[in-house]
Amino acid sequence: MSSKIIRFACDYDEGACPEIMAALAATNFEQNPGYGEDPHCDRARALIKEAIGREDAYVQFLVGGTQANTTVIAAALRPFQGVLAASTGHINVHETGAIEATGHKVLALPDPEGKVRAATVDDYVKAHWADPSHEHTVQPRMVYISHPTEGGLLYSLRELEALREVCDKHGLYLYLDGARLGYGLVSPAADVTIRDIARLTDAFYIGGTKVGALFGEAVVLLHPDLQKDFRYMIKRQGGMLAKGRLLGIQFETLFTDGLYTRIARHAVDLAMVIRDALKAKGVPFLYESPTNQQFPILPDAVVEKLSDRYAFEGWGRVDDEHTATRICTSWATPKENVDALLRDLLPLL
Amino acid sequence: MSSKIIRFACDYDEGACPEIMAALAATNFEQNPGYGEDPHCDRARALIKEAIGREDAYVQFLVGGTQANTTVIAAALRPFQGVLAASTGHINVHETGAIEATGHKVLALPDPEGKVRAATVDDYVKAHWADPSHEHTVQPRMVYISHPTEGGLLYSLRELEALREVCDKHGLYLYLDGARLGYGLVSPAADVTIRDIARLTDAFYIGGTKVGALFGEAVVLLHPDLQKDFRYMIKRQGGMLAKGRLLGIQFETLFTDGLYTRIARHAVDLAMVIRDALKAKGVPFLYESPTNQQFPILPDAVVEKLSDRYAFEGWGRVDDEHTATRICTSWATPKENVDALLRDLLPLL
Amino acid sequence: MSSKIIRFACDYDEGACPEIMAALAATNFEQNPGYGEDPHCDRARALIKEAIGREDAYVQFLVGGTQANTTVIAAALRPFQGVLAASTGHINVHETGAIEATGHKVLALPDPEGKVRAATVDDYVKAHWADPSHEHTVQPRMVYISHPTEGGLLYSLRELEALREVCDKHGLYLYLDGARLGYGLVSPAADVTIRDIARLTDAFYIGGTKVGALFGEAVVLLHPDLQKDFRYMIKRQGGMLAKGRLLGIQFETLFTDGLYTRIARHAVDLAMVIRDALKAKGVPFLYESPTNQQFPILPDAVVEKLSDRYAFEGWGRVDDEHTATRICTSWATPKENVDALLRDLLPLL
Amino acid sequence: MSSKIIRFACDYDEGACPEIMAALAATNFEQNPGYGEDPHCDRARALIKEAIGREDAYVQFLVGGTQANTTVIAAALRPFQGVLAASTGHINVHETGAIEATGHKVLALPDPEGKVRAATVDDYVKAHWADPSHEHTVQPRMVYISHPTEGGLLYSLRELEALREVCDKHGLYLYLDGARLGYGLVSPAADVTIRDIARLTDAFYIGGTKVGALFGEAVVLLHPDLQKDFRYMIKRQGGMLAKGRLLGIQFETLFTDGLYTRIARHAVDLAMVIRDALKAKGVPFLYESPTNQQFPILPDAVVEKLSDRYAFEGWGRVDDEHTATRICTSWATPKENVDALLRDLLPLL
Repeated sequence: MSSKIIRFACDYDEGACPEIMAALAATNFEQNPGYGEDPHCDRARALIKEAIGREDAYVQFLVGGTQANTTVIAAALRPFQGVLAASTGHINVHETGAIEATGHKVLALPDPEGKVRAATVDDYVKAHWADPSHEHTVQPRMVYISHPTEGGLLYSLRELEALREVCDKHGLYLYLDGARLGYGLVSPAADVTIRDIARLTDAFYIGGTKVGALFGEAVVLLHPDLQKDFRYMIKRQGGMLAKGRLLGIQFETLFTDGLYTRIARHAVDLAMVIRDALKAKGVPFLYESPTNQQFPILPDAVVEKLSDRYAFEGWGRVDDEHTATRICTSWATPKENVDALLRDLLPLL
Repeated sequence: MSSKIIRFACDYDEGACPEIMAALAATNFEQNPGYGEDPHCDRARALIKEAIGREDAYVQFLVGGTQANTTVIAAALRPFQGVLAASTGHINVHETGAIEATGHKVLALPDPEGKVRAATVDDYVKAHWADPSHEHTVQPRMVYISHPTEGGLLYSLRELEALREVCDKHGLYLYLDGARLGYGLVSPAADVTIRDIARLTDAFYIGGTKVGALFGEAVVLLHPDLQKDFRYMIKRQGGMLAKGRLLGIQFETLFTDGLYTRIARHAVDLAMVIRDALKAKGVPFLYESPTNQQFPILPDAVVEKLSDRYAFEGWGRVDDEHTATRICTSWATPKENVDALLRDLLPLL
Repeated sequence: MSSKIIRFACDYDEGACPEIMAALAATNFEQNPGYGEDPHCDRARALIKEAIGREDAYVQFLVGGTQANTTVIAAALRPFQGVLAASTGHINVHETGAIEATGHKVLALPDPEGKVRAATVDDYVKAHWADPSHEHTVQPRMVYISHPTEGGLLYSLRELEALREVCDKHGLYLYLDGARLGYGLVSPAADVTIRDIARLTDAFYIGGTKVGALFGEAVVLLHPDLQKDFRYMIKRQGGMLAKGRLLGIQFETLFTDGLYTRIARHAVDLAMVIRDALKAKGVPFLYESPTNQQFPILPDAVVEKLSDRYAFEGWGRVDDEHTATRICTSWATPKENVDALLRDLLPLL
Repeated sequence: MSSKIIRFACDYDEGACPEIMAALAATNFEQNPGYGEDPHCDRARALIKEAIGREDAYVQFLVGGTQANTTVIAAALRPFQGVLAASTGHINVHETGAIEATGHKVLALPDPEGKVRAATVDDYVKAHWADPSHEHTVQPRMVYISHPTEGGLLYSLRELEALREVCDKHGLYLYLDGARLGYGLVSPAADVTIRDIARLTDAFYIGGTKVGALFGEAVVLLHPDLQKDFRYMIKRQGGMLAKGRLLGIQFETLFTDGLYTRIARHAVDLAMVIRDALKAKGVPFLYESPTNQQFPILPDAVVEKLSDRYAFEGWGRVDDEHTATRICTSWATPKENVDALLRDLLPLL
């Protein structure tokens, strides 16, 4: 890894925000019982319940997002039931079949923008039950959305309410993957709060890995049927961390003094700087993301020229001469890195 | 958690050894690619290969032991194949069916001591193939052992060689769960080195969680068939850590300057102090463990009296007035804690 | 297959009883909708509900016993739950891990006779919930018994009631595998009726394959939670027979005019003839079976001498000179075959 | 079921062709060992190997198509591998997630006609391996096709050869679902023989259920890796029929004196009569099927008028006034039924 490369390739290139590193150091020699039954986890749970305004929530901490998705989905569904998701959804594409490994089909809904629409869900589920052979097809039982989506987009409050409504109508669980939730909550375009999410979904997770933690996702289960015996599921899925305190300490820190929000805002602010600068140059974007991931479509020659100093991720070729790239900022991105990038990139456009 | 309780309940009550905490702090702002493809993981791999004397080994890092067991076993077996294990083996008892979750039966072998005997394996596999209905029973394909065992016991070199031999004879993989490997390697009773293990098994893992790390197990795959596409399995099983560097940094540290051995020896030395002191008082033990876990059988009244100052784990009642307890030391146990325990305990015996 | 060999090796050596063959021939050109939604299945369901005295039962037909067991068990359990069974139970031994293939552990209870005892269940489940680490072990949720057992034994009404009681106490489902149910119901030793079974279990199946049908098992679901969406499970498990009528016609025939009982009685009567004749000669038996399977322990020399004219199944060696054999009669066994066997066998004893 | 309704709804509305019923009756009292190890199965295997020209084929008989697909696919794939199929393929739509139940993702390829194109496969697999994150996505390892397809279409020899080529290029298995194979082989449009299929695929099955048998599919495994231990897989998947002879007898009969071909031709001839008559009236078709399933697009009013005398299956609405219907003929369809249908239908068009 050359020290000269500045990485914008993803939002988990660094360790953890200094507050978390300090908390881990400070508590290192405490003796705590394992498996998430320690005072740090308890305190983190209390802080999260307060933040989301749901005393009846059940909160457990897992190490990663695939674990969170798999454990929640497999806990919620009977064997013949499936989960509806955008065809570009993380569970449908980027988890090496981890959902299918638990015996469940991901029912992919086509959507050019990567968002699940209430109307599409309604059509799908109505068609399922109207089919006289419905027992020969997977029964839809849950809707999976990510917020922000894979492409950095946000659901509006209206869209989320519509999803809740269609889920109620058809007896579906609504589950929100919040791997980058922090970046979504602080976006200038956001009209959805974490309390809205806690009010409108049956389960969601608050992403730590990509928002300042070393690792960790706080799974929040709201529907009582999902809460029961969930820790058995965690263990069965291989997700029970021995030193659960590590997760508790991190979320305790993130949810103290607004740290989670503050570091997310830093990242989004820098992303907006990049976006505005490129837009001013007329650069087109693959998605109109108001969050920390930006997807400018750049000439290959430009990408090539920058490649010895900056790392982006390719997000698919657009035509013979252009590539959609992903540029991520994070809680850890120094403003100077953004300045350097723009200084080097803008003149090439 | 009262600060007055001294915990001997398990060997993962604290965080990580200071060298690891320092390394994590020092590297916190490095930018590294994710998923175990960073220079720290590479360096840790090189150090492990050197330590085990197998340049052809394939090393990957996972967060926990259940993950390691599940991923290795499910990667190795075809769907109708099972894994032989002692009936007390971790995979048969304490993983909430995580192996069965991947579709495989654990074929439990009775053994009063919790060790798998080569002769028992031989009998089992011969009986399987001699049965004209063998297609109606799970096909044995792997032997799972832990070293030290759940009860803190060690395989001798002779026993391990016999297992290798019976595995070769019947076309079985030999897999060793090394959750507490460090404590086994440094035991005064040990005649098996890590190089023996790397020579005699098809796969094993080097436990970090219980031996000084915050978390992490180094899975070492020796048989080429197990190496192929193993990273797909990790991702599919939900075990691909985004910031894989955290695992690399920890194992890099543990395998530098003999740290892994040194901290393990500290724990075992203290365990021997406890063992010898209790033996001198005539206390019987459930297992004759030469490692960091001790299983003295204590009068209930004694256990009760200590319970406001020390935490042990109950390991099953022996009769109406006695309980087998587990007393663990670890890399983190201060000598003063052992002194205090003996000072309070011995007079009660 | 030499025509000179008379087979007593199992109770499914022949096709189906003539009444079934006639019914299949008579209905062959009827046009019926598929998948068990035809008038024959409906009529068979009505006849079974009447026979068991439970109008609220839900009845579905499957092709074989492993399918029935797998589908019922996987429909009933959440992913981290397991099924208690005798260690010799069919699901634990002779289904090539089909239960584990659905992700569930069979929790084997030791029992020398192959019967599950209420007290053993009680102890197991109490120990589970008393264990502070219970979330690290598979949660018991169902009791599986077979009636008759693998060894031909029967549960008494008192034993069955005790199992019901312990299941109620601990919130367990009670499931009865009736692969050879007919032979159990008509045994001179039986004090359990099919109505008792329908009253005391949550689910059971009425075996057809081994009791006169070409194939087929009638799964009877009594607990409402097991009934819901069961047909999805059948399809998902690969057990939805296209021409479901074939199952309906067979059970319609078996449950008309007492055919099921009549043919079972024929088999058991002949088995008792064999049993009594061997007992009169002082032959010991592996199990004291009052049903159609007999397990006499015979000298190897005798088995060897008969082997060119009779096929039995070996059921395990008892000592260097004796083998436990299984001799099965069935609905199809002609009295002459039994006469011939005894004529040839008795003089050798 | 009113006797006045003539069903064209599917090709498994009746029992079996008379030759099979006669063979089952004639062998009913034979004593045979179970599980497909009887002389009838052996003879059926020999006849099939001769018919397909592959002495090295391994043939096993299963009861149904979902079972066949699930067992072959799960036997072939490692846990993280998936199977490419048309999005309309049976395994992707109509098996209630039976493939996912074995832990594998169906990788759906869009294709308006329901056929898998070699070029689409090539693109997909090249893109997979070119993706630097390929370990985060399911690894493609098998191509599933059905012949005829769900829509009654056939692969040409050229198309099949191209698929073989692309599979060889990328190390994929090629598997052909022949649920309606007979109807495909005898179609006037067919240029693919069963020997071509046995030469070009790694595995396929010969459908019996829909082509004259009571039930049954002959799975033909050509690639040696798929043959090994396949019977374990059958048992594990719940597909091991106790009286395996029933499958043997049926395929023995179907492959004697060209019965399989003869009855398939009867069905296709009648389907062509229907097709030609409707085409002469200008009726459009959803698929240009040259096999026993026809998909005419009919005015709703016409469908409604016929519904008290004929049963079709709806195959999706085309516009506000038209529905695509499926009209199936089979080995069992009397010419008079077709005459009656056309007599009643044509005047309405």
